[in-house]
Amino acid sequence: MLVNQLETPALIVDLDALERNQKRMAALLSPLGIALRPHYKSHKCTAIAHMQIAAGAKGITCAKLSEAEDLIFSGIEDVLIANQVVEPSKIVRLAYLALCCHLAVCVDRMENIDQLERAAAEAGSTIRCFVEYEIGMNRCGVATPEEFCILARQIIASPHLEFMGIQAYAGQLSHEQSHEVRARKSEDVEERLHALINVLQNGGIEVKEVSGGSTGTVEQRRAGTVYTEAQAGSYLFMDTAYGKLGLGFENALFMLSTVISADPGKVICDVGLKSFGVDQGDPVFVDYPQTPAKMSEEHSAVYCANNAKPGDKVRLIPGHCCTTVNLCDALYFIRGDKVVDKVPVTSRGKSR
Amino acid sequence: MLVNQLETPALIVDLDALERNQKRMAALLSPLGIALRPHYKSHKCTAIAHMQIAAGAKGITCAKLSEAEDLIFSGIEDVLIANQVVEPSKIVRLAYLALCCHLAVCVDRMENIDQLERAAAEAGSTIRCFVEYEIGMNRCGVATPEEFCILARQIIASPHLEFMGIQAYAGQLSHEQSHEVRARKSEDVEERLHALINVLQNGGIEVKEVSGGSTGTVEQRRAGTVYTEAQAGSYLFMDTAYGKLGLGFENALFMLSTVISADPGKVICDVGLKSFGVDQGDPVFVDYPQTPAKMSEEHSAVYCANNAKPGDKVRLIPGHCCTTVNLCDALYFIRGDKVVDKVPVTSRGKSR
Repeated sequence: MLVNQLETPALIVDLDALERNQKRMAALLSPLGIALRPHYKSHKCTAIAHMQIAAGAKGITCAKLSEAEDLIFSGIEDVLIANQVVEPSKIVRLAYLALCCHLAVCVDRMENIDQLERAAAEAGSTIRCFVEYEIGMNRCGVATPEEFCILARQIIASPHLEFMGIQAYAGQLSHEQSHEVRARKSEDVEERLHALINVLQNGGIEVKEVSGGSTGTVEQRRAGTVYTEAQAGSYLFMDTAYGKLGLGFENALFMLSTVISADPGKVICDVGLKSFGVDQGDPVFVDYPQTPAKMSEEHSAVYCANNAKPGDKVRLIPGHCCTTVNLCDALYFIRGDKVVDKVPVTSRGKSR
Repeated sequence: MLVNQLETPALIVDLDALERNQKRMAALLSPLGIALRPHYKSHKCTAIAHMQIAAGAKGITCAKLSEAEDLIFSGIEDVLIANQVVEPSKIVRLAYLALCCHLAVCVDRMENIDQLERAAAEAGSTIRCFVEYEIGMNRCGVATPEEFCILARQIIASPHLEFMGIQAYAGQLSHEQSHEVRARKSEDVEERLHALINVLQNGGIEVKEVSGGSTGTVEQRRAGTVYTEAQAGSYLFMDTAYGKLGLGFENALFMLSTVISADPGKVICDVGLKSFGVDQGDPVFVDYPQTPAKMSEEHSAVYCANNAKPGDKVRLIPGHCCTTVNLCDALYFIRGDKVVDKVPVTSRGKSR
């Protein structure tokens, strides 16, 4: 089947570009000795998670228990939920899931550690725990080395928990436009983490892993970085928001759309806000990259000189790949002008 | 089951508020003799479409063929696709669907009329056609009465098509903040449509219906309006964007979320951009209406004095109900503090 024979809207993945992005990420990380634990949130597709493992990823990062369930049931054996799980019914499920794989979760307070220990004891499993360190997001995480030590010691003292190390995600830097500012602030994060690790080591606490980092900060890693794992996700697909940073990855994710109305100064297409995550900006038409799209729920419009006719197929680059994939039930894999596979977005909408 | 026992995130519908919104809409439209053809895009849930029909709606408006299929297969007998359908495979499906119900579609050019006639002749069905008139969206639709007449005559001359009238959706007015500007511009639209109807009537073309209008423009309708059908959708649920207009409808749609981290100046919840459409603004915490939420993919944060504890349940009002519902697989119906039903969002993600 040819790509332009797909009914639209259809979210398509250029496998050749995706594979080049995978190679570039490996080339960035390998010299530094950082393992890749790519973030599932960007594709939510177990088929792609297995492609990442086959290409050398150590395991997968995800945001939610429901994503971890999909990953583990699909056969992924090493999963980190980079988040706190606090609802009692979820903690019970998490503890039993940990029986059949390496499953890690983040914590930032004592009560949650006690809940996890009780559930893991009941299930007879071991839950791996990262303590989340607050390094600029002002979201979850503990803010001082002293608080961190207290929680780490509590995990170490819990027979069914295993202390893994530090969750340190500096998401506030990911889309910082200036390369210099991103580099300098990444250095600040490294220094804060270095200070934390010193306190932990002086207290006799072994840090196995320091996990974090996004597509936007991987290129800032230097020899001697404290990070042992990178949680990048968007490098695989890219989008217009990351495209502005000049990171050297290619667009591999496109929305195929059909022109439904047109005149020499206007193109109206059959895809809109119901198919695009626009939280980091509107999509851009591949054929009209300089002209902003005007979006409504089921239409994308571009107002510029064109030769488009109703029925024509056009492509758009999403503003944000992660929230766009989460709107679509399937991805179409393409090579050149051919559709080579259709895969479900396994965990679409799984935010529990 | 109590509402606060739901795993989160969970999108909940307060049925008492929804029913009051239904009554208010009926009270606005009945004196004007306007029929309600509510827009499916706001709930995408066939169960709610049937509730609307039971409460007096004449039929349902939708945006896409895939939505029309869900509606018709669920038993809705009168459906308007307020959009152009141009892909050949979809036109064939549309023609066969029209065998078992009253199915209407919008057109804005000759070639599309010919495609529809050929497909309906092949299927042995009759497709109802509205010609779309461009009244300020600068999207689809013909711009002059002369072009409109040419298309209307072509439909009338097509044995398997039935000319219904005018599709006139002035979406650009829906969220105009000033009541006066909204009223004046709505009046301009009425005048343009009145002029069009005069031209059509002078040409011997009967206009059965004038369909259009949103939640934001219903209260501007006056005695003598040209509209015969209102396509409002959001009145049922409301959201923060429409809430600013003071339209007299209540919030009936809430996101239930769990606090996962908190301190006296900060509340972090387990729901984010993956569950909220933010194209018309971020959601607002019911308990902290004055403080903007800070959103990330799976978190909502609010920074203000609070007594929240991890594990607490909180509610948020979506910025835009239509794009929020389209992210969720199910709606939980509640009355007071009890969950009374769970219904699938039948057409979630159906944008074809």
